[in-house]
Amino acid sequence: MPTFQTVRGMRDLIGEEAQTFTRIFANARKTADLYGFKEVITPLVEPMELLSAKSGEEIRQRMFIFEDLGKRQVALRPEFTASIARLTTTALRNEPKPLRLFSVGTVYRYDEPQKGRYREFWQSNYEIIGSAKPEADAEIVLLTDSLMASLGLQGYAFKIGHVGVIRGILTQEGVDDKTQNAVFQRMDKKEYDAAMELLESRKTRQMLRGLIEIKGKDWQDTVEQIKTYVAGYEKAEEAAQNLSEILKLVTCGANLTVMVDPAFARGLEYYTGMIFEIYIPELEIALGGGGRYNRLIEVFGGEPTPAVGCAHGIDRVAIALQTQKTILDGKGGKKVAVIPISEALKSEALKIAQTLRSEGLTVEFEVMGRKMAKALEDADKRKIDYAVIVGERELKEGAVMLKDLSSRQQTTVSIKDLASKIKS
Amino acid sequence: MPTFQTVRGMRDLIGEEAQTFTRIFANARKTADLYGFKEVITPLVEPMELLSAKSGEEIRQRMFIFEDLGKRQVALRPEFTASIARLTTTALRNEPKPLRLFSVGTVYRYDEPQKGRYREFWQSNYEIIGSAKPEADAEIVLLTDSLMASLGLQGYAFKIGHVGVIRGILTQEGVDDKTQNAVFQRMDKKEYDAAMELLESRKTRQMLRGLIEIKGKDWQDTVEQIKTYVAGYEKAEEAAQNLSEILKLVTCGANLTVMVDPAFARGLEYYTGMIFEIYIPELEIALGGGGRYNRLIEVFGGEPTPAVGCAHGIDRVAIALQTQKTILDGKGGKKVAVIPISEALKSEALKIAQTLRSEGLTVEFEVMGRKMAKALEDADKRKIDYAVIVGERELKEGAVMLKDLSSRQQTTVSIKDLASKIKS
Repeated sequence: MPTFQTVRGMRDLIGEEAQTFTRIFANARKTADLYGFKEVITPLVEPMELLSAKSGEEIRQRMFIFEDLGKRQVALRPEFTASIARLTTTALRNEPKPLRLFSVGTVYRYDEPQKGRYREFWQSNYEIIGSAKPEADAEIVLLTDSLMASLGLQGYAFKIGHVGVIRGILTQEGVDDKTQNAVFQRMDKKEYDAAMELLESRKTRQMLRGLIEIKGKDWQDTVEQIKTYVAGYEKAEEAAQNLSEILKLVTCGANLTVMVDPAFARGLEYYTGMIFEIYIPELEIALGGGGRYNRLIEVFGGEPTPAVGCAHGIDRVAIALQTQKTILDGKGGKKVAVIPISEALKSEALKIAQTLRSEGLTVEFEVMGRKMAKALEDADKRKIDYAVIVGERELKEGAVMLKDLSSRQQTTVSIKDLASKIKS
Repeated sequence: MPTFQTVRGMRDLIGEEAQTFTRIFANARKTADLYGFKEVITPLVEPMELLSAKSGEEIRQRMFIFEDLGKRQVALRPEFTASIARLTTTALRNEPKPLRLFSVGTVYRYDEPQKGRYREFWQSNYEIIGSAKPEADAEIVLLTDSLMASLGLQGYAFKIGHVGVIRGILTQEGVDDKTQNAVFQRMDKKEYDAAMELLESRKTRQMLRGLIEIKGKDWQDTVEQIKTYVAGYEKAEEAAQNLSEILKLVTCGANLTVMVDPAFARGLEYYTGMIFEIYIPELEIALGGGGRYNRLIEVFGGEPTPAVGCAHGIDRVAIALQTQKTILDGKGGKKVAVIPISEALKSEALKIAQTLRSEGLTVEFEVMGRKMAKALEDADKRKIDYAVIVGERELKEGAVMLKDLSSRQQTTVSIKDLASKIKS
């Protein structure tokens, strides 16, 4: 008989790892709630034309595309934003703005698998649609901070930039949009020399080289440097000013570590303003990021609508937590095994199990019909806290034996007091 | 500009519907915890050979199958059980039995869309692996009851049968396995005449016809009728006895409505014992179901391992709750809008928003830069409970204005008392 494996680049999550993921899902939902975001659930399979409407060329080439039985060209979503844009222009078209939308689920990209990079991976995704103000950008950065803090992540830092700075310079120097996109793609991969080769004018190349040199942890100082450097490039100045306002709000809202980088680029072409990523010192890959995309919604058939959003790589956040050996708070609930002494008592034992469950206790009812010693040994292996032993003699008195599996002490406890005794 | 739609048979979930789904996810996780099930997360894309190893022919023909960029034949999972069986025979091979495994997520079947039937749909899935005892069957039925009860579902009933009754008769009458499977498929669709046509012997047809007539709500009476009817068919008698033991446990564990139906069949070929489905009177479609499959694990390369499991159709449960107008308990958290009186106060306002969030309150921070009257009007539309109005005069005293949006009363509250005042 064959042993089956997962598809290359995809994986099973079990045990503590699965628990970490479900805790991150829960914290992501909690963060959405605190910031007033409403959860929406969109299909994983989307029409090809939707997904390719404005993804970067690079992502398009790495999509899982196929034909369904009705001969439709469809693909597995490589990100959430296209689906959210669709919602904004259809079902939510008439909702008052701003929309604050949250999603969590899997996305798919055909990349070469490596640590922290899978072909199926999990994201939590947040978008504020309808506001062009720096307050909205700040909220997106702050909720990322809140989520990471809630998980106990240590020493993380935000890298923040603004695509308007470089675009402002390039546009004023007469570089067309297509070339600009190509420049950004290379800069995203830190291929600065390759990026320069795309620019004909020596002056433009020098401007860009100089900009790459500016970065720093004192955000106020760095933003001032940028402003001075781009003086005379009106749109770039505006972008720097906008970045400054966002940073002011963000640093008022939380005590976070910010690294300002005006030459920072992200792979997706649709960003129009602030962009950011989040890192921990121990890992080179970003745990998440996002930015402003003011022209995306109109591509999907909506009115021109400003928007800003972010996505967090849950697989990477899980790796970060594991790297930092962070123990997520357990539910702390006591675990109980309910074991009848004999076959004849199993109905009575099941009744007791149901009573304990109705009190919120985790109960593993003995379903193997094992002898007591074997069942207790198994309960130890599974790190069960208490065994409830259901015997005929005690039952006649309306009681059971309760064995504390850490102290090995055993006492007779009446069934009506059992749940509270275990909880205390 | 085009307006994009979802792929046929798939849909967006927004607003209250999305909330209902996330509540069902949460209750499903809670139920898993109460019954000692561990969550596992498996890929949505699986190798074709895994998924086709033992699904019914019918399901195979309705799968979303495609080739990935590495020329692998893959498909979107049509159910969870194949993935769980894979886990059991690989990563969890050496774990002590029983395994209690829980999953929740989407599955995919290319069916004709209709009410309650989508091509992408959500399931919560529970499996107990390693126990052949009726206790395990009972646990699966009981957790289904607990989940439905926790959601506030009313008047639901279980339909329970046992494939061993009919298989016992057919095997003893010399009907081969392939024909038996075909008989079950037709019976699953209630095409009883078509099922009969597959059987050569008149005696066998008569036995089956008679069995179809036996059903009833008094489970003890019905099981006795079945036992008497199949007397002489040894395997069928054993099956009826097994069903009787399961029903005894189930009805001890909870006060549930059971309809016993010995001619009940389910679409999947892999069942070997008890099978069940759950219904509400208002809907013809099952909200979930499951059964025992003792020979499936070995198909996936494992030792012969008894197992029993179930899946609940979350889309259908959501329809059932909507049909019954059940209001799921809200989180009950107060919702707050934080609005600065002027642009200059937005940083201070954001600080206050962050303080309230750290106290667990849902805060919509004003990100539109609107005038107060407009922002308050919007807060009303969104059913916000309180507006926190941040003005210069109050701020100097370390206070803000708190407006109760239902009573329209406005009071000045110090920032340090604000969260507790809102919560009280």
